[in-house]
Amino acid sequence: MTMSPKLGVCYYPEHWPEARWAQDAAQMTALGLTYVRIGEFAWSRIEPREGEYDWAWLDRAVETLGTAGLQIMMGTPTATPPRWMLAKFPDMLAYDAEGHPRGFGSRRHYCLSHEGYKDACAKIARDMGARYAHLDYVHSWQIDNEYGCHDTILSYSPVAARAFQIWLETKYNAIDALNTAWGNVFWSMEYGAFSDIGLPNLTVTEPNPSHVMDFRRFSSNQTVAFNKVQADVLREITDKPLIHNYMGRITEFDHFDVGADLDIASWDSYPMGFLEDRSDRPEDFKHAYQRQGDPDFQAFHHDIYRAVGQGRWGVMEQQPGPVNWAPHNPAPLPGLVRLWSWEAFAHGAEFVNYFRWRQARSGQEQMHAGVLRPDGEPSPAVAEIGQVAKEISALELSPLQESPIGLIFDYASAWAWDTQPQGADFDYFRLVFEFYSALRKLGQSVDILPPNISDFGDRKLILIPGLFCWNDSIKRAMRAFEGRIIIGPRSGSKTRDFHIPEALPPEIDGLELKVTAVETLRPSGDIALEGGGAFQIWREHVQTSESVSLMSEDKRPAVVSKGNLHYLCGWPNALGLDAIFKRQLNELGLPIYALPCGVRRHDMSGHILYTNYAATPEQIDGTVLRAAGVRLIQKSSGKIIIKE
Amino acid sequence: MTMSPKLGVCYYPEHWPEARWAQDAAQMTALGLTYVRIGEFAWSRIEPREGEYDWAWLDRAVETLGTAGLQIMMGTPTATPPRWMLAKFPDMLAYDAEGHPRGFGSRRHYCLSHEGYKDACAKIARDMGARYAHLDYVHSWQIDNEYGCHDTILSYSPVAARAFQIWLETKYNAIDALNTAWGNVFWSMEYGAFSDIGLPNLTVTEPNPSHVMDFRRFSSNQTVAFNKVQADVLREITDKPLIHNYMGRITEFDHFDVGADLDIASWDSYPMGFLEDRSDRPEDFKHAYQRQGDPDFQAFHHDIYRAVGQGRWGVMEQQPGPVNWAPHNPAPLPGLVRLWSWEAFAHGAEFVNYFRWRQARSGQEQMHAGVLRPDGEPSPAVAEIGQVAKEISALELSPLQESPIGLIFDYASAWAWDTQPQGADFDYFRLVFEFYSALRKLGQSVDILPPNISDFGDRKLILIPGLFCWNDSIKRAMRAFEGRIIIGPRSGSKTRDFHIPEALPPEIDGLELKVTAVETLRPSGDIALEGGGAFQIWREHVQTSESVSLMSEDKRPAVVSKGNLHYLCGWPNALGLDAIFKRQLNELGLPIYALPCGVRRHDMSGHILYTNYAATPEQIDGTVLRAAGVRLIQKSSGKIIIKE
Amino acid sequence: MTMSPKLGVCYYPEHWPEARWAQDAAQMTALGLTYVRIGEFAWSRIEPREGEYDWAWLDRAVETLGTAGLQIMMGTPTATPPRWMLAKFPDMLAYDAEGHPRGFGSRRHYCLSHEGYKDACAKIARDMGARYAHLDYVHSWQIDNEYGCHDTILSYSPVAARAFQIWLETKYNAIDALNTAWGNVFWSMEYGAFSDIGLPNLTVTEPNPSHVMDFRRFSSNQTVAFNKVQADVLREITDKPLIHNYMGRITEFDHFDVGADLDIASWDSYPMGFLEDRSDRPEDFKHAYQRQGDPDFQAFHHDIYRAVGQGRWGVMEQQPGPVNWAPHNPAPLPGLVRLWSWEAFAHGAEFVNYFRWRQARSGQEQMHAGVLRPDGEPSPAVAEIGQVAKEISALELSPLQESPIGLIFDYASAWAWDTQPQGADFDYFRLVFEFYSALRKLGQSVDILPPNISDFGDRKLILIPGLFCWNDSIKRAMRAFEGRIIIGPRSGSKTRDFHIPEALPPEIDGLELKVTAVETLRPSGDIALEGGGAFQIWREHVQTSESVSLMSEDKRPAVVSKGNLHYLCGWPNALGLDAIFKRQLNELGLPIYALPCGVRRHDMSGHILYTNYAATPEQIDGTVLRAAGVRLIQKSSGKIIIKE
Repeated sequence: MTMSPKLGVCYYPEHWPEARWAQDAAQMTALGLTYVRIGEFAWSRIEPREGEYDWAWLDRAVETLGTAGLQIMMGTPTATPPRWMLAKFPDMLAYDAEGHPRGFGSRRHYCLSHEGYKDACAKIARDMGARYAHLDYVHSWQIDNEYGCHDTILSYSPVAARAFQIWLETKYNAIDALNTAWGNVFWSMEYGAFSDIGLPNLTVTEPNPSHVMDFRRFSSNQTVAFNKVQADVLREITDKPLIHNYMGRITEFDHFDVGADLDIASWDSYPMGFLEDRSDRPEDFKHAYQRQGDPDFQAFHHDIYRAVGQGRWGVMEQQPGPVNWAPHNPAPLPGLVRLWSWEAFAHGAEFVNYFRWRQARSGQEQMHAGVLRPDGEPSPAVAEIGQVAKEISALELSPLQESPIGLIFDYASAWAWDTQPQGADFDYFRLVFEFYSALRKLGQSVDILPPNISDFGDRKLILIPGLFCWNDSIKRAMRAFEGRIIIGPRSGSKTRDFHIPEALPPEIDGLELKVTAVETLRPSGDIALEGGGAFQIWREHVQTSESVSLMSEDKRPAVVSKGNLHYLCGWPNALGLDAIFKRQLNELGLPIYALPCGVRRHDMSGHILYTNYAATPEQIDGTVLRAAGVRLIQKSSGKIIIKE
Repeated sequence: MTMSPKLGVCYYPEHWPEARWAQDAAQMTALGLTYVRIGEFAWSRIEPREGEYDWAWLDRAVETLGTAGLQIMMGTPTATPPRWMLAKFPDMLAYDAEGHPRGFGSRRHYCLSHEGYKDACAKIARDMGARYAHLDYVHSWQIDNEYGCHDTILSYSPVAARAFQIWLETKYNAIDALNTAWGNVFWSMEYGAFSDIGLPNLTVTEPNPSHVMDFRRFSSNQTVAFNKVQADVLREITDKPLIHNYMGRITEFDHFDVGADLDIASWDSYPMGFLEDRSDRPEDFKHAYQRQGDPDFQAFHHDIYRAVGQGRWGVMEQQPGPVNWAPHNPAPLPGLVRLWSWEAFAHGAEFVNYFRWRQARSGQEQMHAGVLRPDGEPSPAVAEIGQVAKEISALELSPLQESPIGLIFDYASAWAWDTQPQGADFDYFRLVFEFYSALRKLGQSVDILPPNISDFGDRKLILIPGLFCWNDSIKRAMRAFEGRIIIGPRSGSKTRDFHIPEALPPEIDGLELKVTAVETLRPSGDIALEGGGAFQIWREHVQTSESVSLMSEDKRPAVVSKGNLHYLCGWPNALGLDAIFKRQLNELGLPIYALPCGVRRHDMSGHILYTNYAATPEQIDGTVLRAAGVRLIQKSSGKIIIKE
Repeated sequence: MTMSPKLGVCYYPEHWPEARWAQDAAQMTALGLTYVRIGEFAWSRIEPREGEYDWAWLDRAVETLGTAGLQIMMGTPTATPPRWMLAKFPDMLAYDAEGHPRGFGSRRHYCLSHEGYKDACAKIARDMGARYAHLDYVHSWQIDNEYGCHDTILSYSPVAARAFQIWLETKYNAIDALNTAWGNVFWSMEYGAFSDIGLPNLTVTEPNPSHVMDFRRFSSNQTVAFNKVQADVLREITDKPLIHNYMGRITEFDHFDVGADLDIASWDSYPMGFLEDRSDRPEDFKHAYQRQGDPDFQAFHHDIYRAVGQGRWGVMEQQPGPVNWAPHNPAPLPGLVRLWSWEAFAHGAEFVNYFRWRQARSGQEQMHAGVLRPDGEPSPAVAEIGQVAKEISALELSPLQESPIGLIFDYASAWAWDTQPQGADFDYFRLVFEFYSALRKLGQSVDILPPNISDFGDRKLILIPGLFCWNDSIKRAMRAFEGRIIIGPRSGSKTRDFHIPEALPPEIDGLELKVTAVETLRPSGDIALEGGGAFQIWREHVQTSESVSLMSEDKRPAVVSKGNLHYLCGWPNALGLDAIFKRQLNELGLPIYALPCGVRRHDMSGHILYTNYAATPEQIDGTVLRAAGVRLIQKSSGKIIIKE
């Protein structure tokens, strides 16, 4: 079996004269595109007034694209309810944490808990499915668009408040059970009835973390339930794949849970926007990669969504030029559109769709580059896309292999540490990403694993940083595993109810170790490690009878080891992770690759892909790889398939 | 014809014992003051309860001042409606963007869209006019006070929302016309009725820029309409000049439009407060001029208001010492009060009124210096004012001449780029001001021109940076003009509806040029120019068949030229502007003056004024000009009239 | 008479199994603890539903602790009203300045002006008093907990608004008196009736400072009145001491006024949290003391609360390890728990209670260290507490002596300068604290004095920085005093109504001096003093016939002196204060002690305590004092009682 990734594009026929559609479709296929995503913002054109449908234009658009040879990814338009929906359901709006309803006039203006709106979503999904699902042109269905974008998972609306009370009553049954689980005795916060419980915003000082954590779980569950309504409707109609397009660094809901109801995971990849807008990297790093994007951010998400999609995933939206939404929006260096595409294929993407076909002339995103310029002429991305199309059509890529290294990513831990960072700089995403990035800089390919995994397979190394609470599955996996496990910091430090475990963290079977105190460090307060690097942000005081394999310079255990278990008593900075991982990989006999600063290597079983994110040419194996270049090597022969 | 500028002062007889009034008036005239502005905050004393007037005290104050020889600028008190007005119109308050009514207890607590309050303003203006307009003492009328101060143009009140719907219906007539003009199809934002349209605040993510732009136009128009109510009332009563006092760096309404209904423009000049509170200058600049104010900010506003007043303008409030409202409020260096006054005269001011006569002992501005101290004794400003009075009375100043250089300033462009900055650092005021400042550092005197100008006259150079959208008048002026025109960046980049032009920007007749992409630059990401300096903040990729007269170091066109048209493909930083303007001025044969760093030169036709804003003495033509000194030279004779 | 300070701990029996109570009590006494504070957050367990009491558990807890030999400090639980209270009084919540009710779900969710809630507080205090006050075990009563914590003094609720109107009517009687006192004529802000007056939030621009100042006084008075309700109830029942535990750097109410109704003052001392969270110290200072806390912050509060308690005071909560609430929470260096305890004793503390006995496993503060770890085992604090217990039991400490130096601290001045900072960096607490710290670095022990003091006694030096307004008592004290008085800056600069005095500040009897202007300085704008150091933040221009004992380098008077009166015409920075105070102390013949950077010295009459806050050993009198060490010397013999 081989992989044959495809290219596609996002298209909005409703934005352009019908006379242009056929030309657009022809240009798409000529460019080598296979997929076209449509429909996901078109509700006001499909159903201009409640119950009055205008299918004709969409029928013609589908036929035009389909007969041109394109496969259609059809989006349900539920991220953009029309204005008449708000007249029908005035209480459908989400509320922000300050108590404001989040009004009509952009998109995603709905509260996930509104039952009436969910019914309306079921209806439009059913109607669209009934009309188009049987067509051969239609390849798959995208449900809604970018859950969580614009901070839309947490809603503090009256509708959400009532749904939360019901959810709590279902979970706890008796109010005293909730009072105990939350430890409400602490500040006389005990409730007499579920109907007395409010949402955890606008309290005098911080609310009870157990209260917040349940609200975060509820909010994630509401997202899952919202998505499932449409998934269930479409399943009845079709067996074509169901997809959602997730967004970068959104952790407010559990993507694994949403993904369980779908067939393919996808995400929207804006490497430069994300580096500028949602990165913890220091200023010099952001400067160095301002026109390339973070060399690890895309790969990390690719690996997450491969896990969320249980192997099936793609890039639904790929940045093709400058975007409109980051604080600063420079243009990518020539070659990046191609490089980003190849990075996705190397991680197993089934498709990369560029966003969007033609730059819009009006509306919020008119400054977002497209494959075509606003005047319909080709942008610089066209040449790169064409090159990629040719390259992939000329190749048979080997399927991905399981990596010897697995890294656990857990959305609930992100909620937990957002609820109780304890130090201002503690962030779960950052923690896991820094582990990932450190391994990737050493040339490793890493699989992301869900937190409820029950078997680590034949892997050699499993990393579990910051997992707030153990579950039975992973404990089973840990017990059965013969490879090495690196845990911590902060893993196992809470019970599911957000209490400190009775016998102290981290409660790891087979490791006699107690975290007796933690400290959070000032940016100036790093604690040096004897092996190089330092602990930053977080460090634990431990009591242990196990062997200490690394000490901090202030003479406390930094790594505690027993058998295949290794516990990190703090958050190592980049140098610290580099030193620790080098030692661990060496001990495991895993090869370490010395890569130039901006170069990354990804192992695809049959091929190796090198990507050069640097703005300068770099040496690999004695040969120059140009700035923004990619090199593809056939492992069996060592042959360079693509040179740069 | 010669200019004979006058000095004046702002006075609040209602704050002081009546017994003191005559002494104050005598001291004013002794100091050489001609004008006294009164009345603009006194509503609660004129009409303590609705319909109950107390004119007697004001009659006596007017008579005392008038018989002392002062000319009265009479203010209508509509910026400070009394508390009973709020009882009468509970819905008269403006709302902030967060949805809070902006309450009673300071000033400007009214929504420009409230019809009842506008009627009340008409009534008080009519009543005051009827009582005082016929008096010889009364020189002119100031309507309201500092429109837009404290962010009071944009109101998100229910009253404003309803007025906006009506305004839109008047503009578009049919809802589909609005949907098309706004491109509402983009995210299913189409409306079924004007009554469904809300104000563009508190949306989930950014609202449609076309929606915002219309709200900005509406808000400006409401300001014009608010002002016109009183102007119309007073016109019926008197033909004395009508004035408004604008405030520094307020761009939320179109001053040209308000000014069209008035006779004289004036502004309130607080050089040190503005540098500290509302300047983009870097920290070292702010430090260097902390006791002097920006050497160009006042001049820029003087030139704006000369344009707004169609030649007639003055300074209604001039800072005479430390103020109360900036984050830090140091005292001016000795000499600045005189220098600021001279700067105004050099730009054609008919009057400079100091604010205020005597420092208040209570209320919000008690820490704002006056000409007199709170105890009634002279502050250090007195000596400087006296000196100015003597200097101007001994001179006949030549009238202003038209400058060979004109610079377009357009309020709507400020709204456009505030709506869609695209890069975090893009600000229209800053862009135009940096062009102005760069020219002034080269010794140039610059005229500010309105965007709807239809004839550039005999000028040699016109600059049009960042004009978001062309209008027929300026296009006509450009076609007819034989001088040089420097355009850009971002000029002509939108249609009036806030779309990207169909054939791409900048759509300049006679210049074959398309902006194919734009990028916004990180502060660290300046792009060097081959001629020196760099593009900052904003840079465009262009496609052109015209000649490229300057390249960037990354080998893209930086200046495109054809005939008398020159287009800048980015925002040059100070060094870049200096290099570009030097070359352009040289080519035009306009003299460039090498000035010491803090020194400025202004050409008054018959005279040249040098002002030294530096804290150190500087050399001019081989003679020392002291710190904070002014030098006046008669052009015809070369004679130094004032040495320092 | 000698002092015999005691140790204690805060304990929450309601958080732990009853089976553990006896063991806890036994461990407390074994550790040398005398006091245990309980009860202050237990309302929902004492009265689970309105009127349904469950005293039994508390009876048993009291008996268990009492029979173990512990003295109980009993807290009334009014900082944590149960959920049913909110159902009874839906309008009891405080509102924030943005207009949001501050909801249930943490603590302190009550408006101080709610009469119904005050009655409920009286009832629970009466009920608890009736049940426990007669027991010998019960040592004293703590009323409520940490007034003002979480910004809970200023409430903008409808209930507060109505109470404010009544308070104003009581104060002014006639509305015209208020209009005059506030100077409401300024911007037509005159009121027709008390019922028209709103709270000074959400105004368009800044509200009238006189309005704000009365609201601040009202808010402080509401705090005093709230506290007095319970104090009065308990006074009827018992003559045991009444206590409140104040919080660090809370200035929103007058602690002297609350303290006047109580017997003992106490405060909650979190040295590291306070340095990280609420300190003006520069970054390098925060870094140097990140694991020790500010060497002066605790001492300053100890001295404040000794004054508030009129000699009787203690530490109700002492940090025993890392806390949970600061932006970063490192662990203290070994020795600090002991050092902090000794610092308190040296300042006359009757008790130091550690907070809390056992680290909580759930709720908001689960990451706040306790004396015991969450698993019930000893934390590192135990050894240090045990050492302190032994040390104090082996000693007889001399009582405090009156210091020759007194420093005025006035809460109303904090409100005044918060209302009108005039410069962004002006803060009253910071001003007084910098004076205190400068003296302490010179080895001085300083008494804090209230602003209404009428006799300075036999002291040698009184300092009065920033006292916004004189009162008759202090003027009497100043006239009678023969020692030296250092005044300023900004002292006497307002009348009680928040006007500038008619004859200009500072209005000091016997000093012919007028502040004619003030300036607030940029951080880069310090003004050097001829004697070393500089004025920062604030500087005054003065007119005087008195002698000038120090000039600034820009040739203005910096210190004006006449007889025993010395006026500082600005805010000296640390170097400036050091130079000025050295000269003043030398002139007064007060000894100056040259101390290493982190070392402090406190004079206890019979003993001298040295504390080393540095992270390094330091030399004192030729002997090394270890990092975090304390040294106690008997003054009479010079004998070292405790070496390090």
